[in-house]
Amino acid sequence: MKNLIVAQSGGPTTAINASLAGVISAAKESGMYDKIYGAIHGVRGIYEEKLIDLTDKAGDKDFLELLKCSPSCYLGSCRHKMPEASEDSKAYEQLLEIFDKYDIESVLYIGGNDSMDTVSKLSAYTREVGSPVLVGGVPKTIDNDLAITDHSPGFGSAAKYIATEMLEMSHDTAVYNLPCVTIVEIMGRNAGWLTAASALARNSYSTAPQLIYLPEVSFDMEAFISDISKLLETSSNVLVAVSEGIKDKDGNYISASTAVNDKFGHAQLSGAGKFLEAAVKQRLGIKCRSVELNIPQRCAAHIASATDLNESFELGRKAVEYINEGNTGFLPVLLRDSDSPYKWHIEMTDITKIANEEKTFPLEWINETHNNVTDDLITYALPLIQGEISVPYVDGLPKYTDISHLF
Amino acid sequence: MKNLIVAQSGGPTTAINASLAGVISAAKESGMYDKIYGAIHGVRGIYEEKLIDLTDKAGDKDFLELLKCSPSCYLGSCRHKMPEASEDSKAYEQLLEIFDKYDIESVLYIGGNDSMDTVSKLSAYTREVGSPVLVGGVPKTIDNDLAITDHSPGFGSAAKYIATEMLEMSHDTAVYNLPCVTIVEIMGRNAGWLTAASALARNSYSTAPQLIYLPEVSFDMEAFISDISKLLETSSNVLVAVSEGIKDKDGNYISASTAVNDKFGHAQLSGAGKFLEAAVKQRLGIKCRSVELNIPQRCAAHIASATDLNESFELGRKAVEYINEGNTGFLPVLLRDSDSPYKWHIEMTDITKIANEEKTFPLEWINETHNNVTDDLITYALPLIQGEISVPYVDGLPKYTDISHLF
Repeated sequence: MKNLIVAQSGGPTTAINASLAGVISAAKESGMYDKIYGAIHGVRGIYEEKLIDLTDKAGDKDFLELLKCSPSCYLGSCRHKMPEASEDSKAYEQLLEIFDKYDIESVLYIGGNDSMDTVSKLSAYTREVGSPVLVGGVPKTIDNDLAITDHSPGFGSAAKYIATEMLEMSHDTAVYNLPCVTIVEIMGRNAGWLTAASALARNSYSTAPQLIYLPEVSFDMEAFISDISKLLETSSNVLVAVSEGIKDKDGNYISASTAVNDKFGHAQLSGAGKFLEAAVKQRLGIKCRSVELNIPQRCAAHIASATDLNESFELGRKAVEYINEGNTGFLPVLLRDSDSPYKWHIEMTDITKIANEEKTFPLEWINETHNNVTDDLITYALPLIQGEISVPYVDGLPKYTDISHLF
Repeated sequence: MKNLIVAQSGGPTTAINASLAGVISAAKESGMYDKIYGAIHGVRGIYEEKLIDLTDKAGDKDFLELLKCSPSCYLGSCRHKMPEASEDSKAYEQLLEIFDKYDIESVLYIGGNDSMDTVSKLSAYTREVGSPVLVGGVPKTIDNDLAITDHSPGFGSAAKYIATEMLEMSHDTAVYNLPCVTIVEIMGRNAGWLTAASALARNSYSTAPQLIYLPEVSFDMEAFISDISKLLETSSNVLVAVSEGIKDKDGNYISASTAVNDKFGHAQLSGAGKFLEAAVKQRLGIKCRSVELNIPQRCAAHIASATDLNESFELGRKAVEYINEGNTGFLPVLLRDSDSPYKWHIEMTDITKIANEEKTFPLEWINETHNNVTDDLITYALPLIQGEISVPYVDGLPKYTDISHLF
């Protein structure tokens, strides 16, 4: 008998633990492993032999249920770039020694673009040296910028949170009969998927957010001020969704960092939202606020998308199935069969096709004036935010998995 | 037969519509009114005769259920300070003319401190001139700074949201094994109740937020840096809750506004969180982020406290009962009978006792080193965040009341 190890890497998401629950439950059920290990803090935890034994927990239904709807990384995370094996083979030999020590022949790594680079390099190395160790990835990233897969696990939950907050803010900002602009800055440095998802907040009585600006097209300050002015002619309140990564025509980020630079280091502090807030106040002389949705976008598990968590769970299970069949250097991806009814299936992809690729928002889904998205976004994203999960509540707050092993 | 008018005023909350639902349902059931009017945009809507007829809706159970759990002000809001009647009686005569025109003899105003000033002045005037018009208030404010009442409607829901986000961020920030400080800026310019409520996020496996700074005691930058340094000796991640209104020993707000002043007007833009983020980076040279919970604190109806909404609803109903009995110049308040089991009742208070008073956080509930709250806060606030409401979801998002009449 052999053992399996699983780890998580990159930025946390609401759904990355659902994939972990999928991996360990399927590994246990397959009966192919004596032990199921979890590495604490990604690949670094493997180097440091910070392993925990998940074998018993993998058969504990209550634990799995709780893990599936708990935010962030149960196993912790890391940001670690593996060297090229041709330049530093020792980094790889060291990992193989540890795998050998713990009888590990299956390695699954849950993460985004950078993590898939690790899977790609490690699987190439094991193949090259004829090691029996198989290595696979499981996708995640709220940014939705992974190639090939129809969408990334974690995106649906983040989109549901963003659209919900946007809807609630559209109610909040509607109360006063005075000109007011509210700018909401949304995550996604290079890819506008999350900012675009704010369009899901629109309904039969509200067009908010009335304006949406994505990083895929250049941001024009004059056009922005003009867009707002036009809307204020017929409406008191304007809600704007803006990506943290918008850039001007020369490729410079639109953020207060370009304007402020003082001894307190504000250059790094203020983002696109704050900058545009200042611009609106200065140019239009009206009330303007900015809201940065920030960290909660990727951890608001209390309003996770059931569709997202279920898909993430299934991707984890499929990864086990693929590795049990003897595959290495692969990633399970989601492929959409139809929008309505929403149907999908999982296929296996070669990891080299996905590592270090970036899927940005389609230009043809951005309107001509670059201040809105087309209905294609709604058709695409609406199925991904469907379904609510029943998080258990204790003493008025959601109950999540104990993570004291990370402290 | 006579008519009743109801309006909402001041900043929006998650629970102010629950009180409105209580008012209109009780007014309808009492059988004492021909018509139930709602004024759009507070007292300004009365001046402008922007009234909507709520009589039919008041008997519509489905509408009332939806209204009860919808965020912000269904009737819109205003910030309007009434003049002293002795200086400008015309402002009052004008209101009485409109009341007369619409056969209005009962006026209920849902709001916070400033709105209760309106109730106080208007009721004093009607008494003085012998008008039959009765005027009562219904309390609300997320800041929890109203006098006499044990707590304010809207506070419990805001506290539940803040504690939930803090809990989720404690999971998110725990993933990396690197020194990192996350500073969360919370609403409450003068009263620290909401910031203190972040302590509810602590549980058996997490002490986050490890530090809490309130506006009721002066903020000492050296002590703050020292508090963080000490915690980093034993833990990688420190989560800090800080009130937007913290001040130094001379009473100056701690915010980037004191440090930055450029042509883009950043002086008004960056708050306590951003300022402390810069200070930690500069002084300790480690990773630091700041998160401003911002507007969602007062409108995150998807995670409202059922206790809060039910109490807010009952306060609205009681206000109708009191006004139907012939009272004027009053406010129904919540009085607590016991913490555990949590019991309370509603009493009537003279509006002059509450208007323009401010209840700040008790100094004896702040620890000696001014960086935490005592367990008294938990005992006090825990009952107020209990219970979840079942918001209806349509197409993956919460369904709230149509507010197209505000646009």
